[in-house]
Amino acid sequence: MNLDSFRHWAHKAADWSADYLGSVAKRPVRAQVKPGDTLKQLPLSPPAAGESMDDIFADLDRIILPGMTHWQHPRFFAYFPANSSPPSIVAEYVTAAMAAQCMLWQTSPAATELETRMLDWLRQMIGLPDGFRGVIQDSASGATLAALVTAREKALAWAGNKEGLAAHAPVRVYGSTHTHSSIDKAVRIAGIGDANLVKIPVAGSHYGMDMAALDAAIAADRMAGRVPAAIVACLGGTSVGACDDIDAAADIAARHGLYLHVDAAWAGSAMICPEFRNLMLGAERADSFVFNPHKWLLTNFDCSAHFVRDAKALTDTLGIRPAYLRTLAQEGQVDYQEWSVPLGRRFRALKLWFVIRSYGVAALQAKIRDHVSWARALAALIDAHESFELTSAPLLSLFSFRYAPREAADLDALNARLVERINDDGRIYLTQSQHEGSFVIRFQVGQTNTTRADVMAAWDVIREIAAEL
Amino acid sequence: MNLDSFRHWAHKAADWSADYLGSVAKRPVRAQVKPGDTLKQLPLSPPAAGESMDDIFADLDRIILPGMTHWQHPRFFAYFPANSSPPSIVAEYVTAAMAAQCMLWQTSPAATELETRMLDWLRQMIGLPDGFRGVIQDSASGATLAALVTAREKALAWAGNKEGLAAHAPVRVYGSTHTHSSIDKAVRIAGIGDANLVKIPVAGSHYGMDMAALDAAIAADRMAGRVPAAIVACLGGTSVGACDDIDAAADIAARHGLYLHVDAAWAGSAMICPEFRNLMLGAERADSFVFNPHKWLLTNFDCSAHFVRDAKALTDTLGIRPAYLRTLAQEGQVDYQEWSVPLGRRFRALKLWFVIRSYGVAALQAKIRDHVSWARALAALIDAHESFELTSAPLLSLFSFRYAPREAADLDALNARLVERINDDGRIYLTQSQHEGSFVIRFQVGQTNTTRADVMAAWDVIREIAAEL
Repeated sequence: MNLDSFRHWAHKAADWSADYLGSVAKRPVRAQVKPGDTLKQLPLSPPAAGESMDDIFADLDRIILPGMTHWQHPRFFAYFPANSSPPSIVAEYVTAAMAAQCMLWQTSPAATELETRMLDWLRQMIGLPDGFRGVIQDSASGATLAALVTAREKALAWAGNKEGLAAHAPVRVYGSTHTHSSIDKAVRIAGIGDANLVKIPVAGSHYGMDMAALDAAIAADRMAGRVPAAIVACLGGTSVGACDDIDAAADIAARHGLYLHVDAAWAGSAMICPEFRNLMLGAERADSFVFNPHKWLLTNFDCSAHFVRDAKALTDTLGIRPAYLRTLAQEGQVDYQEWSVPLGRRFRALKLWFVIRSYGVAALQAKIRDHVSWARALAALIDAHESFELTSAPLLSLFSFRYAPREAADLDALNARLVERINDDGRIYLTQSQHEGSFVIRFQVGQTNTTRADVMAAWDVIREIAAEL
Repeated sequence: MNLDSFRHWAHKAADWSADYLGSVAKRPVRAQVKPGDTLKQLPLSPPAAGESMDDIFADLDRIILPGMTHWQHPRFFAYFPANSSPPSIVAEYVTAAMAAQCMLWQTSPAATELETRMLDWLRQMIGLPDGFRGVIQDSASGATLAALVTAREKALAWAGNKEGLAAHAPVRVYGSTHTHSSIDKAVRIAGIGDANLVKIPVAGSHYGMDMAALDAAIAADRMAGRVPAAIVACLGGTSVGACDDIDAAADIAARHGLYLHVDAAWAGSAMICPEFRNLMLGAERADSFVFNPHKWLLTNFDCSAHFVRDAKALTDTLGIRPAYLRTLAQEGQVDYQEWSVPLGRRFRALKLWFVIRSYGVAALQAKIRDHVSWARALAALIDAHESFELTSAPLLSLFSFRYAPREAADLDALNARLVERINDDGRIYLTQSQHEGSFVIRFQVGQTNTTRADVMAAWDVIREIAAEL
């Protein structure tokens, strides 16, 4: 494909993109295919000779599209959103064309410095104090792994990296029963082990950690010769939006000398609205804080914003510089590969620049406020309906509910059937969780193009399908 | 930005992309800026109100472009390439517009099944046997971390994940002194520790591990009560292209019951040419094999192909399925989030589909063969020149050399100056390494649009600048 041909197909892809976004609302949200439906349409072996782009685009529409679940559908209310927006997509085009590899300052000075400045913009936007420095990670899973390994090493005075954990007493990590599975995964990968992730029970309307239990667990571990290393505080848990009292967690972390990591993967974006910042009180004393602009800040995946108070602790933990990666050191040169698990890095700051500049902070705030208010409005309707019950109140734009008609016996089975039927129907997409021993249906509002009418239409669909059960 | 406006700016970005690629050869390869040059042009705080896309694009050209190192410049001979190609960029456009999150089969059935098939195409292309299954990881660092944690858990019968490494004898990993820094990083993150990464000396023209020393080290560790877990074999090391004898490593791994991981991050792409497969003899007996189509197979970063012989061992190690990620299990449903460190995943298989189909295997082979033959031709010229010496023979398209005029005293300092002067000049871009105690200059041919003339022009630049020293 020469340059003229590239220009032709790049324009074709631009039109394809606009056509897709213009028609996505007409498609079923969740793919309506069975396992193997796509696979059986794909040749078993690669072609020896090149094929035409016309054929490839035709197959994209014929084979791939019908098998996709549409995350940019305005009636996507499942999981958390994977946001995207027009300026973010445009920035991704530019990023793909430049195809820079941004591991070192020298390999991408402008990308590195734009990343530094964009993360500082985000820091200001969510109200974190001046001392925090940021880096873009691939995911909150990656950020949390980096944070927990740093905490582990801090607790062991960096002897874990040198000698391995087999040479030391067990490192302990604390989080609530609502922390995300990425904490479980990180604890395994980091060699800390499930048994040393202490899950503290929750209490209160925000499902926050029982702080007395946390304090006691740390003290008991210390007495037993274990090495308490980190508290993971949850700001907007995945299941029902659990929020720990970060201020109290910071007190305990300070008292015991522990590392405090705040996982605000989803809810962190809402902190750009000052009225929601009561949820992050105390985060200014955390050691690290992660949130995903790729969830709820109109920025394409992957873009996870990871803030740390002590960047040196992070780079002392993850930084390795063999001879082939050394460059002439220059004052002020930051090499972000030392801040994260992967060495290679895409130019991900560009889309933040496009998004924040083209919307401006006020429009981003308005978007979040709309989502929150529509979720609250729908939750109120569900709460008022005699055959439905709200199983958790809205935390920002997330709540859970279940169908509980008076005559029903097995509510778990009934609601499992309801969510399956709703998703098979395809007009909206919802997912489930387990909450206080029950099967519940989650509802979150967050897709970029969702309107109030979409949220209200979801309520019609839910009632209609429930009535048919 | 509404849909019409998006269409307008998407086309603008398409033109920007074509213009950039059409003019990149006229820019200096390595950015010619100083630390802070970009940063000082970026406002300290984000705008409250939105700005025009016209302004943003103008700033892209004015502020960002002059600060970029151009990885898609045809005279980029540094590091390893971060390949890109027209069909790959077009596919990235489509991926950005769909913005699907491909963590579970249900969230992206077609993406999941396309990934399965594309990885099987790649498996066939590089000649790995049928039993291997593949997944796309963000980077070879991520793949290697996943492999080493799996090896660790296999050696501990999955008790490390449960109890942590503190409860067990030290796990040991073996690799040569030429293994990549990502192995060092993975060993740290996984809690194994530097002290338990045993670096075996190399010997022979391919800088391969001394297999007798490897065998002895494993036996001694076992005797000492340590837990030998994994051998990492290197296929095309970063410094000078070191290659271990994988067949011999597989024998030793089998004899001692160890996991064998092959790191072919860069050189793996060349295995699509059967004439180079002597380098991977024995890989069919490895437990995992990683190579990066984003390095040398015309596919945009990130796209690292990770093959495993026992997918269950991998998912038993990294798979966690909380209530909010459960879906109605269906036969044949693969959830790739269980195969990797991050939970969230971009739709990365699409670009492989576009690249492999639009080029066809034969054209991809021809590209690799050209790069290898041009590197060999240049290496021969350098070898024949009285003031230069080849410090390592070409391994595929990578070799190293240094300037060694008869009268020079401190060759290390002279060559450090030479590489800096070359990169300041901007016509070509080269990086250095440390080899057998000396500072050497690396040269690799691999950028998509590089021609034989570009490689020969590099030789002119090198001699011209060396003569000026």
